[in-house]
Amino acid sequence: MKCSIDPAVTEVLNNHKGGNKLKTAWDRYEAQQPQCGFGELGVCCRHCMQGPCRIDPFGEGPDRGICGATADTIVARGVARAVAGGTASHSGHALHIAHVLKKMLAGKTPDYAIKDEVKLKAVAGRCGIAIEGRSSKEIAQDLVEKALSEFGDKGEALTWAATTVTKARLETFSKLGIVPTSIDGTIAEVMHRTTYGVDADPVNILLGALKCAVADYTACHLATDLSDILFGTPQPVVSKANLGVLKEDAVNIALHGHNPLLSDIIAQVASEPEMIAEAQAAGAAGGLNVVGICCTGNEIMMRHGIPLATSSISQEVAIMTGAIDAMVVDYQCIMPAIATAAECFHTKVITTMPIAKMPGAEHIAFSDENAVECARAILRQGIERFKSRNPDKVCIPQKSSTAIAGFSAEAIVAALAKVNADDPLKPLIDNIVAGNIRGICLFAGCNTVKVPQDHNYIEMVKKLLAENVLILATGCASSAYARHGFMTSEATIRYAGKGLAAVLTVIGEAAGLGGPLPPVLHMGSCVDNPRAVDVAVAIANKLGVDVSQLPVVASAPEAVTEKAVAIGTWAVAGGLPTHLGVVPPVLGSKLVTEVLTSTVKDLLGGYFIVEPDPAKAAVALLTVIDERRAGLGL
Amino acid sequence: MKCSIDPAVTEVLNNHKGGNKLKTAWDRYEAQQPQCGFGELGVCCRHCMQGPCRIDPFGEGPDRGICGATADTIVARGVARAVAGGTASHSGHALHIAHVLKKMLAGKTPDYAIKDEVKLKAVAGRCGIAIEGRSSKEIAQDLVEKALSEFGDKGEALTWAATTVTKARLETFSKLGIVPTSIDGTIAEVMHRTTYGVDADPVNILLGALKCAVADYTACHLATDLSDILFGTPQPVVSKANLGVLKEDAVNIALHGHNPLLSDIIAQVASEPEMIAEAQAAGAAGGLNVVGICCTGNEIMMRHGIPLATSSISQEVAIMTGAIDAMVVDYQCIMPAIATAAECFHTKVITTMPIAKMPGAEHIAFSDENAVECARAILRQGIERFKSRNPDKVCIPQKSSTAIAGFSAEAIVAALAKVNADDPLKPLIDNIVAGNIRGICLFAGCNTVKVPQDHNYIEMVKKLLAENVLILATGCASSAYARHGFMTSEATIRYAGKGLAAVLTVIGEAAGLGGPLPPVLHMGSCVDNPRAVDVAVAIANKLGVDVSQLPVVASAPEAVTEKAVAIGTWAVAGGLPTHLGVVPPVLGSKLVTEVLTSTVKDLLGGYFIVEPDPAKAAVALLTVIDERRAGLGL
Repeated sequence: MKCSIDPAVTEVLNNHKGGNKLKTAWDRYEAQQPQCGFGELGVCCRHCMQGPCRIDPFGEGPDRGICGATADTIVARGVARAVAGGTASHSGHALHIAHVLKKMLAGKTPDYAIKDEVKLKAVAGRCGIAIEGRSSKEIAQDLVEKALSEFGDKGEALTWAATTVTKARLETFSKLGIVPTSIDGTIAEVMHRTTYGVDADPVNILLGALKCAVADYTACHLATDLSDILFGTPQPVVSKANLGVLKEDAVNIALHGHNPLLSDIIAQVASEPEMIAEAQAAGAAGGLNVVGICCTGNEIMMRHGIPLATSSISQEVAIMTGAIDAMVVDYQCIMPAIATAAECFHTKVITTMPIAKMPGAEHIAFSDENAVECARAILRQGIERFKSRNPDKVCIPQKSSTAIAGFSAEAIVAALAKVNADDPLKPLIDNIVAGNIRGICLFAGCNTVKVPQDHNYIEMVKKLLAENVLILATGCASSAYARHGFMTSEATIRYAGKGLAAVLTVIGEAAGLGGPLPPVLHMGSCVDNPRAVDVAVAIANKLGVDVSQLPVVASAPEAVTEKAVAIGTWAVAGGLPTHLGVVPPVLGSKLVTEVLTSTVKDLLGGYFIVEPDPAKAAVALLTVIDERRAGLGL
Repeated sequence: MKCSIDPAVTEVLNNHKGGNKLKTAWDRYEAQQPQCGFGELGVCCRHCMQGPCRIDPFGEGPDRGICGATADTIVARGVARAVAGGTASHSGHALHIAHVLKKMLAGKTPDYAIKDEVKLKAVAGRCGIAIEGRSSKEIAQDLVEKALSEFGDKGEALTWAATTVTKARLETFSKLGIVPTSIDGTIAEVMHRTTYGVDADPVNILLGALKCAVADYTACHLATDLSDILFGTPQPVVSKANLGVLKEDAVNIALHGHNPLLSDIIAQVASEPEMIAEAQAAGAAGGLNVVGICCTGNEIMMRHGIPLATSSISQEVAIMTGAIDAMVVDYQCIMPAIATAAECFHTKVITTMPIAKMPGAEHIAFSDENAVECARAILRQGIERFKSRNPDKVCIPQKSSTAIAGFSAEAIVAALAKVNADDPLKPLIDNIVAGNIRGICLFAGCNTVKVPQDHNYIEMVKKLLAENVLILATGCASSAYARHGFMTSEATIRYAGKGLAAVLTVIGEAAGLGGPLPPVLHMGSCVDNPRAVDVAVAIANKLGVDVSQLPVVASAPEAVTEKAVAIGTWAVAGGLPTHLGVVPPVLGSKLVTEVLTSTVKDLLGGYFIVEPDPAKAAVALLTVIDERRAGLGL
């Protein structure tokens, strides 16, 4: 099977100097064949020690687990626990930032500051915190306490959920009993109801999963808001993406993971003249070259213009260039395989977080109280390791694409305001109504070994752009479109249909870009998906409809993680038809499959569309967009 | 295979009138054979959608998952998620009680009241809440806020953990970084670190599991304390146990599950003359006969003397007597199979909790704000159903045992105080020192289809009692010993070694029992395991040692649930050598197996002893007890 359609990744896979011993995720995927059919269908259960139990999908063997659970119950439990795993990830990410903000306000983390007071006030105001006549510190103190209260037993609807969706949506959530009153409490509730002998009603379990997904949305939105306050709300910035951004003559430091708490500080410190001088003194004429991988790549690209090396699935491939001196990771989507890959090169893998260590890596505990010094120490590890780089093993593909990143909701509104300062959303809505923008699709999620890297993303986006669908992207979708050149003015000219191209040209020129806006707007990392919701909610509120009526859809065509399951589930809860290009482990239950792909539509407006063929998936999304347009009388 | 050594269960299994179509957990266990070897070894992972991945235990196939995770990482992740599932269950149970207490204080749940002011003051005092000159309501208000703060981001060590273990133990926890600062936050942390690409270091993951287990201990202790405050601290009470407690001429209502919030109210309401009259009017001359199953059985037995029908594994067998008119459940250990079994009889299965529904059951939402009325409505369902009972299908085995239940830590101290009022622990400690009590073993956990019901419990207890080991029991261990007649004065005469018998006789006679204390002390349901810790901590503090030095051990010889994994893990964290009679899914990793059974001993004093043979297990525990005695110079 082809591993990737990314030319840089393919070049390294074909020409790396790591030796035959070196295996990649694609090799390990092959070694795992055939994968367990029970697991693929979701009909295996290990939630108690009487198991493992498995339901025979052919109806010839057991149709119940030892406790009496049917395939429906077992599959639903699996979905719910996946959502819980994803929500826990975003909870940890968000809580981490809230803790640092709180410590910063107490004067304990001198290397952090409130960087975006406008955002602080906007978020605080939305949360019902008094703004007038108060200092930023006072406002932030109230805000951080409000944020921390979202994780415990709040006793009322979570603020970040209740204040960022449409009124109608919140009422729908209330009717279904899926308004969470605690982020972590809802995770615990899912774990409780899915343990031995608790919830056996598959539909009830799925409602629990939906509630947990709303908690996930809350955590993501909270994390994004606090990140913007601490590090600045992203604004359009021109950068580069793909492995060609590595430099032969520089110390290459790859930052990989998710949370900007670590990477933003390293990004800042790497531009210090003393650090650059240290790198040069070690023999790197080009100094320090920080690059990003996975969502950390998105975070530092959109806030600092730092180039993105590659996405999660190809993290080993970055090491296989032989040119990365240190790979510094925090948490999420970090393959433990990178430590093994690094053994074939000089690369030092550095873990930094107490909850994410790895055999074979060096652990440097990152202290938020002493962040800059920690960042310097980490960079020095890379500089030191540069000295052992073997030039014979270096294989940097000379391939990278220009990418304009940083289209936060605020940045999009600001660009639109150049067209209509009094009513920024009007040009967008007018063009949707006129059909120049047929609809909007948010691409999110991961790359998976089950599909050649980027294949589904690229096939789908070409078709949708030609049909005048405006594309928003986050996470590894952002990465894919950045690496493949879809985040440029030229891409609009090349790929966008006439109507869409005209709109993007008007906005781009009004915004002073000297050309059209890119047809794919980089909205950030995967935790930033609520930025897209903010845009959709603003449109819905302005039109006086709910998001479930808009010609807006979502797609995770190469989804992998439990986070993707959680995000996909809240996209559905939020009213978005959501495409999955990889079949999730639910087919063992007709009932669960039916609920997720159909019944839920009647309840929430959103639903899953599972379609591995990207061409068919694009057609399916266009059909939905047209249905919704028709529903609005367009 | 033999299903059970319980004579009543065996009689029903052999003579039931449910027809051949009726299958039990043992039938379904047989149908599941052979069970998946990968799952049994713990080397299968479904934490992302690239999987399922499996490690080949024979070393011929894949040695890594697609992400690079080894068997060590995968097995450790599985253990940690099981602990998280268990902790979530106890968190839900504890939070539920805290919510009702809070609502009661606000006047919203008129059917609940503070029943035990002594316990309220004791718990509040231990938690650092002012007592003097304050009303119970004021104290309780502070206590419930303190309790609720344990579930969120507390920012300091959890109060219930920090104030109920020895000082040395708390220091040990701190050194290892396993002091939780949030019950639900720690569950979320485990889910986060075990998702794709976070923690790959198996030892680090296991430390996360230990921290979560300490959170589980916190939740259990909190639940027990608040239950005692609302429903009374258990005191010795004589009751009966086994299916013979069902009555042919009465409406038999089986209460099954865990939380006393529901069952305690039903137990109260069932003795109302009007309700009894309604039952009689329906033709049941014997009126209403409430019986307990599983831990609910323990809760209402120890607080109301209500007889216990059977344990969790034989919940279907209770229905197969044809004599249960309604089975009313809350949550945990409720097999969905009971609804199927009930189809073969007239029994109505009633679910009551929003997070625990079941296909085929009737759901009557239990409202704590209107508890008594709800309880009456539920009982009336049973009375109505009694009318359709088919006498030809009834098979009530005439087998039950007397059982003295209700040995809370307070009750044990009160009994000891009859021997030495000034220093109640002295007689206990003196007899341990003298060797009359060689050691103490806490039996806890479940019944499993993998062992004939009760077999391991009974084999082990006979050997340990003969060797003068005092036995404490909770959960389905309590049930086993109650049903098999080990909770009587006669059992002391029959089974206890000379030294132990003499001690129990002195205490029993001083306490006015007219005979020895039972050799197995019923300490409550599975959430009540901290009651045993309280006894051990009191002994340790008095001796000036830590629990890890005491000749105290634990055993879960027939463990099933994730709750059992969590409890077993905190028993180990608390310093107790803890026997498991069922092999947990860890053998796929030598490292994890080694850490859990050996390395952890150096860190915490406790460790797992896995031994399926009950005779060998008893010898192993005696050896440990003697080692510990020697360590204390005894």
